[in-house]
Amino acid sequence: MPSPSPENEAGLIRDETGTQSLIGYVVDVSVGDGCGRCWLDIGPQHTNRHDALHGGIVTCLLDNASGTTGSLTVNETGKAPFLTISMNTHYLAPAFKGRVTATGKVSGGGRSILFIDAELVDEDGRKIATSSGVFKRVPQERLK
Amino acid sequence: MPSPSPENEAGLIRDETGTQSLIGYVVDVSVGDGCGRCWLDIGPQHTNRHDALHGGIVTCLLDNASGTTGSLTVNETGKAPFLTISMNTHYLAPAFKGRVTATGKVSGGGRSILFIDAELVDEDGRKIATSSGVFKRVPQERLK
Amino acid sequence: MPSPSPENEAGLIRDETGTQSLIGYVVDVSVGDGCGRCWLDIGPQHTNRHDALHGGIVTCLLDNASGTTGSLTVNETGKAPFLTISMNTHYLAPAFKGRVTATGKVSGGGRSILFIDAELVDEDGRKIATSSGVFKRVPQERLK
Amino acid sequence: MPSPSPENEAGLIRDETGTQSLIGYVVDVSVGDGCGRCWLDIGPQHTNRHDALHGGIVTCLLDNASGTTGSLTVNETGKAPFLTISMNTHYLAPAFKGRVTATGKVSGGGRSILFIDAELVDEDGRKIATSSGVFKRVPQERLK
Repeated sequence: MPSPSPENEAGLIRDETGTQSLIGYVVDVSVGDGCGRCWLDIGPQHTNRHDALHGGIVTCLLDNASGTTGSLTVNETGKAPFLTISMNTHYLAPAFKGRVTATGKVSGGGRSILFIDAELVDEDGRKIATSSGVFKRVPQERLK
Repeated sequence: MPSPSPENEAGLIRDETGTQSLIGYVVDVSVGDGCGRCWLDIGPQHTNRHDALHGGIVTCLLDNASGTTGSLTVNETGKAPFLTISMNTHYLAPAFKGRVTATGKVSGGGRSILFIDAELVDEDGRKIATSSGVFKRVPQERLK
Repeated sequence: MPSPSPENEAGLIRDETGTQSLIGYVVDVSVGDGCGRCWLDIGPQHTNRHDALHGGIVTCLLDNASGTTGSLTVNETGKAPFLTISMNTHYLAPAFKGRVTATGKVSGGGRSILFIDAELVDEDGRKIATSSGVFKRVPQERLK
Repeated sequence: MPSPSPENEAGLIRDETGTQSLIGYVVDVSVGDGCGRCWLDIGPQHTNRHDALHGGIVTCLLDNASGTTGSLTVNETGKAPFLTISMNTHYLAPAFKGRVTATGKVSGGGRSILFIDAELVDEDGRKIATSSGVFKRVPQERLK
């Protein structure tokens, strides 16, 4: 990929955690529609026995997009901490190459618990996986 | 960790896929009780914003242990291909260091569909996460 | 409710099973958009300890709407048999009275397995619950 | 069924809610092992198109056993209010007749959120379905 120009980088979060640096996904909070996004350019280090994107990485992308979507309900940085309580993933189709993008959306919830759905699509818009999860906002007092 | 002696390596599967090499988990089919296992020594490259094991990696370990458990219903190599149809994960407690081990167990199913539960525990036997999933055996004719 | 006129009854399925007669929900395949629907007028016989619609009945409505949606992929009667393999339900808000309607939608799948999402809303369009499930078409040879 | 003798009735909860009276399941908190139970004698009013126990009723029984298990963490009445946040059910095998019993078990959680697994078995001990759910204790102040 070409180096992104600076303006493209606004709203992109890279290398925030050890896992993010290892796997290489990018969190995108730039769109401003309240939906957290997380994308990955599939490489050989992301594949399973069938040379397709590994299910664990699929879930990782959906989880990050969902958690970020929760964070965006707090403020626009997308970094307010949320915990994943539970997550259910459906694996619809394999992805073999190119960029896959997970997008989250709040479906309900209240003060502390949020229900967040997400879907992962490939470059052609084909659905690779969907998820629905329960997320919990981390109280500020627990962060000190 | 010290280098494992050869006899310890029997029944351990390392570096079988790109994802496995990247994340560094080990699949263990040595016990002979029909349960697939998958363990990981937590390093800084496996953590989330809270310095705990990342939820995506948690699910990856549970998924591998479950799929391997499915494979063990076919033969003892633990490599017969299974697809994850759906998986639901509950995140019970954070894990910060040491070795975590996921163990799968068949709860039901038939010829092509298996229901497989798994749990992830840390070195003290504390439950980190549990999962329940639907897995499908890949027909041999689709593998050519 | 007033008695429905005959034309309103086209595409409505009532009393098809013991459970349907007991609970009193109505299956609606009249819309023609490929989405199965299932609605219920909440009565005191449908409530939990909090005087809200019981979670078990919520899931029952979502399951029926989803299974009917699967059936509509086969033919327009909405009666082709499908089995529920797994279903995950999120309970977003309580419903206390009036009519609630569950609507299913296929999100993916293939020849034998379908992924079907559904949501239950009240008369004001408020989301009461969402679900995502794995459904399996019953082979014709097994029906004899 | 014969009328139960009084001593059999200790720890059994009948007709507590509209749904319970309609469907006819019995909640059992008598065993004293911290596991809530919920059983039903299958009748024609509980069946689906395949003359098997309806999936919605299966989930209803699992939900009641799980919620009761949550209540038993508060006190032995089994009536302390808990809300179902999410529940995932796997349908393993059909049940056609006799008594089916759902039993819940806490797998983790903390002050307000509990993770509760349950399984439904028939009279022969065959597993009909399993579930895993997220439950929330209802704060006392919200009950007035």
